[in-house]
Amino acid sequence: MQNFEYWTPTRIIFGQGVVDKLPETMKRFGKKVLLAYGGGSIKKNGLYDKVKSLLADWEIYELPGVAPNPKFNPSVVDGVKICKEKGIDVILAVGGGSVLDCAKAIAGAAGYDGDPWDVVTGKVPTTSAIPIVDIITMAATGSEYDAFSVISRTETNDKVAYYSELVFPAVSFIDPTYTYSVPKNQMLAGVVDAINHVMEQYFNEDPNDLADGMMEASIKSLIKNLEIALVNPEDYNARAEIFLNCTLACNRIFMVGEAQSGWPMHAIEHALSAYYDITHGVGLAIITPRWMKHILSDKTEARIANFGVKIFGLDPATPVRELAEQTIDATYKLFEKWGIPMCLKDVGIDESRLGEMAKHVADTAGLDQPFVYAPLKEEDILEIYKASL
Amino acid sequence: MQNFEYWTPTRIIFGQGVVDKLPETMKRFGKKVLLAYGGGSIKKNGLYDKVKSLLADWEIYELPGVAPNPKFNPSVVDGVKICKEKGIDVILAVGGGSVLDCAKAIAGAAGYDGDPWDVVTGKVPTTSAIPIVDIITMAATGSEYDAFSVISRTETNDKVAYYSELVFPAVSFIDPTYTYSVPKNQMLAGVVDAINHVMEQYFNEDPNDLADGMMEASIKSLIKNLEIALVNPEDYNARAEIFLNCTLACNRIFMVGEAQSGWPMHAIEHALSAYYDITHGVGLAIITPRWMKHILSDKTEARIANFGVKIFGLDPATPVRELAEQTIDATYKLFEKWGIPMCLKDVGIDESRLGEMAKHVADTAGLDQPFVYAPLKEEDILEIYKASL
Repeated sequence: MQNFEYWTPTRIIFGQGVVDKLPETMKRFGKKVLLAYGGGSIKKNGLYDKVKSLLADWEIYELPGVAPNPKFNPSVVDGVKICKEKGIDVILAVGGGSVLDCAKAIAGAAGYDGDPWDVVTGKVPTTSAIPIVDIITMAATGSEYDAFSVISRTETNDKVAYYSELVFPAVSFIDPTYTYSVPKNQMLAGVVDAINHVMEQYFNEDPNDLADGMMEASIKSLIKNLEIALVNPEDYNARAEIFLNCTLACNRIFMVGEAQSGWPMHAIEHALSAYYDITHGVGLAIITPRWMKHILSDKTEARIANFGVKIFGLDPATPVRELAEQTIDATYKLFEKWGIPMCLKDVGIDESRLGEMAKHVADTAGLDQPFVYAPLKEEDILEIYKASL
Repeated sequence: MQNFEYWTPTRIIFGQGVVDKLPETMKRFGKKVLLAYGGGSIKKNGLYDKVKSLLADWEIYELPGVAPNPKFNPSVVDGVKICKEKGIDVILAVGGGSVLDCAKAIAGAAGYDGDPWDVVTGKVPTTSAIPIVDIITMAATGSEYDAFSVISRTETNDKVAYYSELVFPAVSFIDPTYTYSVPKNQMLAGVVDAINHVMEQYFNEDPNDLADGMMEASIKSLIKNLEIALVNPEDYNARAEIFLNCTLACNRIFMVGEAQSGWPMHAIEHALSAYYDITHGVGLAIITPRWMKHILSDKTEARIANFGVKIFGLDPATPVRELAEQTIDATYKLFEKWGIPMCLKDVGIDESRLGEMAKHVADTAGLDQPFVYAPLKEEDILEIYKASL
């Protein structure tokens, strides 16, 4: 077992109607609130009015219009400015992971006198942060239970990961009923992303029984409850399990004591989304079985086969290489059964830029480092793309 | 799925040699340290000297001799006195769960001007607490990852549970190698306790796939790794998995979204340990299959049968009542195989005080409340004791 540190100081308040507890929570912080939200869906579903009414006694400053893939300019810059000018005590992020990611960057940069970009890029360390409370309305990135955020700066084509232990949300409100209105395709893509988050952690060099078991439980729960929610989008238990899995999938509790893995599938997919703006979860569904097939070797076959036995109930008596191949096939068929386009050509990607993307990933993602589960060179990445056509 | 709140702000630092990081951690707190420890085993194994040497720059006040089932008098009283007189900044608990439980009571009571017993019994609320750091050397109660403690007051025959969110340890150092020297019987009793902690949570009215899967993974990991460690007490991975499971078993992360259950087996066993001073884990091994058999009904048979399928790999095609009976039998045989005495008579308990104990449990533990998984009256408890003879 690997040595590890684990710390998640966020309080989760989970369930139907929990947002009613917001005033009780907000009382712990000051009166000046920066309310960050996105494109207005919270105005349509009534959550905006509910929050304003619950916080009638607070002094609220608004940061509306935070975009998906939240932008440094204007969102983070404007938010930091409001925090400084008004002396904000607490940031309330209401919406999806992007709004929360933006709130994290604002929280960490607000105490710094220079350019907030210095903090977001890690050029200067985060030494203080405004507390964050969130009402998270999308089962997706797990931002509500980690200290990461991804911030884009359009004018310089930068997309950076910002991390500071100081920006863990203080409190995350999760009411699964807010996901009832998420369209099926988006729910599906979110679940594939969550399954892949767990798979990225599962394929590592130093498994243990407890962590493996938690991850297997999570993937099986995601598959089962997605299939329930696809039939009945308002099945509360199914939506609640999906949300709970998404919340925990990126937090490291499922992989306690296991080795790092390098998250190769995410790195390979990110280029697809960046170059072609395809849905991240769809890109992952396409890449996952091709990555598994590419890394299949004497060294990895037992781990892949074990995945097939545990997740798909394949027969452990089958010879290991055959079992691993069956596992890869079952993974492909699972996503295909859910109606996901399983080839790059189906989502408008041809071979013209595969080489460019492979070079970009090889240059930036460090997938050839020895700690990566199955290290990949540029030509490996290119082969995975080609096999995905 | 049940609504829930989950919060555990403790930082876990886990692995071989992690105690070397102690000074880095202690720097976050002040210079005045109350060092609490037990009967001296940390002097024998070198940990006391190591801690003193690592903290040579700190001002250390000692509270030695904290007993198992930590005593209000003198340990908590003396500790509170030192904290007040010396202006202690941080309590460092080194040893097993008892030392840490004692530290929690001291931490919570030190800021109160009246009798510390008022705080421990909850007569006055805990409004502040001195931060706690621990080096936990026993895989047992999970006190290193929760905010509970149990304090005994010998002169009045009181044994009370103290809880405050303020006494979560700030940092818990867990190095599984310190458990190498724990005798086999003690390790065995600790693992039975941990298995039972998970079972107490598992048998509830509102299971979900993720929580069930985590709990099944935990019990299977405990069984497998105990059997490895019984053969080779210095198998690091086995000891590490046992410790990790014990740490997480009492924290509520495994049962997220499931219903409360009332912990009936613990309540029934506690009387045995209190009246006859038998080992808690041994008492639990004796009570567990008898409790399962007593509560077996049309309402519970499916849940018990499911436990047998998941934990013991029993055939799910078997008729459910038969499967449930096989599960109870397999649970009994598991403990029996490990050499645990499986009858009360084997541990010196006859029928003379069973009625008295049953009345005591019925009067104090609230096992007849409707939220308990299978509510028990006094006569039920007595029957379980009698079946255990």
